[in-house]
Amino acid sequence: MPELYALIIAGGVGARFWPRSRRDRPKQCLEIGAGKSLIRRTVDRLSPLIPPERIFVVTAASMAPALAKLLPEIPSERILVEPTGRNTAAAVGWGTAAIAAQVGGDPSIAVLPADHVIVDDHELRCLLADAALAAQNGALLTLGIDPTRPETGFGYLELGPETGRHGGHVFRQVARFVEKPDAATAQAYLKGGKHLWNAGMFVFQASRLAGAFQAHLPQMWDAIQALVAYPDRLKLLYPTLEKVSFDVGIMEKAEGVMTTRASMGWSDLGSWEAVAKHLPELPGGRGLGRVIAIDSENNMVHAPGKVVALLGVRDLVVVDTGDALLVCPRDHAQRVREVHQLLQDEGLEYLL
Amino acid sequence: MPELYALIIAGGVGARFWPRSRRDRPKQCLEIGAGKSLIRRTVDRLSPLIPPERIFVVTAASMAPALAKLLPEIPSERILVEPTGRNTAAAVGWGTAAIAAQVGGDPSIAVLPADHVIVDDHELRCLLADAALAAQNGALLTLGIDPTRPETGFGYLELGPETGRHGGHVFRQVARFVEKPDAATAQAYLKGGKHLWNAGMFVFQASRLAGAFQAHLPQMWDAIQALVAYPDRLKLLYPTLEKVSFDVGIMEKAEGVMTTRASMGWSDLGSWEAVAKHLPELPGGRGLGRVIAIDSENNMVHAPGKVVALLGVRDLVVVDTGDALLVCPRDHAQRVREVHQLLQDEGLEYLL
Repeated sequence: MPELYALIIAGGVGARFWPRSRRDRPKQCLEIGAGKSLIRRTVDRLSPLIPPERIFVVTAASMAPALAKLLPEIPSERILVEPTGRNTAAAVGWGTAAIAAQVGGDPSIAVLPADHVIVDDHELRCLLADAALAAQNGALLTLGIDPTRPETGFGYLELGPETGRHGGHVFRQVARFVEKPDAATAQAYLKGGKHLWNAGMFVFQASRLAGAFQAHLPQMWDAIQALVAYPDRLKLLYPTLEKVSFDVGIMEKAEGVMTTRASMGWSDLGSWEAVAKHLPELPGGRGLGRVIAIDSENNMVHAPGKVVALLGVRDLVVVDTGDALLVCPRDHAQRVREVHQLLQDEGLEYLL
Repeated sequence: MPELYALIIAGGVGARFWPRSRRDRPKQCLEIGAGKSLIRRTVDRLSPLIPPERIFVVTAASMAPALAKLLPEIPSERILVEPTGRNTAAAVGWGTAAIAAQVGGDPSIAVLPADHVIVDDHELRCLLADAALAAQNGALLTLGIDPTRPETGFGYLELGPETGRHGGHVFRQVARFVEKPDAATAQAYLKGGKHLWNAGMFVFQASRLAGAFQAHLPQMWDAIQALVAYPDRLKLLYPTLEKVSFDVGIMEKAEGVMTTRASMGWSDLGSWEAVAKHLPELPGGRGLGRVIAIDSENNMVHAPGKVVALLGVRDLVVVDTGDALLVCPRDHAQRVREVHQLLQDEGLEYLL
């Protein structure tokens, strides 16, 4: 199989993890539940398939210092720092062009989010190795996750005909991409068995992606080529790149997109609600911190180093940091994004 | 009218105000809502009727340093420090004997809790002055509060015949004391108009109280006389005093107890629930701290210096200190006492 490179996308803040996540301490830098940060675990699980010397990271300026500290083995030339966020098409395009320029030839690249949970690391490595083989025929690969709930917050992949097998994995065409569906559609997808979640993990050869960019985002690709050739123009050119997601800008439009079922205990850890089950049991629920509870249950507490007393409460999320505190019901955890917006409106940017 | 002395009872921790209240920072030392501590306000509202030089305080050893700091004008000989808490009969008895010993003669004494809220300070002074006149006839006076709700947590005074008037106040015999009634009885008292709350504020002449102690707690009185005469025996004798409340040990048994209606905006601030209405309005409810709120209402937040985000919650009490956090529904606020007990059981005494 081809030597595989990893491009880890680590540009998001993780607004729904406020107050724990901050611009300089984003979700991927947090030790949510485990003793290691999500980005550290993302790097570690790739070995030995993709050792650190073949790992690149795209991140934001505000996060770069924390990231560099967590990943001491990744030298600065492989940490690509965006002068400003331009969404994922720009990040994947720049990362791909930068890898190709640094390593030469036509490298195989796996794009991976920095802030997801994967339980079965071995299976991920098998999937990536098999997908890299499948990509040698010129396919763009996206890993698909079997839905376990009628989630309306994800994009879906509609499965097309089988295209072949590599290792233990069956590959199929993606008939089409479906943006976040409504509840009834999501329920139908869950029952139908013909749709997978689009989990934001991609495998392709650099030349194939370049072709897709030239076909669907040609202006962006020209600018990316220029800023890779002339790194001193990064701050000038990067902010001009179109803000569009990699899914919408490339994957949904490209021909020959394939997928395979990835069964590896995946979670995007989308909110505190999703984190809860990864945290240890405590009186009154799950979490971190010293919790004492009276007539309380099913709460999610994240307050390391603090004593939290719960009295007569259930289904609450309680997250405490030194300077800020969040209290909301578990079924409102997705809405923590709104708190982020409100902090900006209220002149509390220092807490973002 | 006679010169009146104040005996301020400041021995309680205020367990229901955890985590704000601690053994060394009890409820009466807290600035709950206002810019001054409750004990500071208790002293200030007595002037000019009872100036600081006629004020005595009974307190616990753990609280004495904080108290001395808040009341710099009260010299240490007038701050009576209990070696160990022995309930209120001992505190009132010792305080009365100590005042009589220090000032000589037969002083008139007003016993006042340190941790209540009184809105109309002027009316309190009028009440105490008139009560002191009534007490010159040998009565034991207890101030009564017109019930405003069917409270089952207080003792009640059943009104007897009128005994006379002083100033603008009508005095009546107390026909009997009623310990904490059940809900139906409390409801009947609220409607009947013949019962007042027993608010723990008393006025009497020292000699009259001595007589009541000799009649109803003679052993305790002998011990108190001894420890006042020989202060070096305080640590030896005080722990031997019977643990009984002043109401049960003296007032309920004594003859000639009188009361008058005290209409002065009184509250015992029994819990965070009672505190709420004294705190400023905030997004999502009332409290202290920087609160931002989305779809939240009627919460009570006490988190000075912290940013608290409330999202989709109502009727909650949220109290944050540097080391501890309490979350409970407002209608469970009385149960914060149970948290106090649980902290002891869990080996978290350092947070008491």
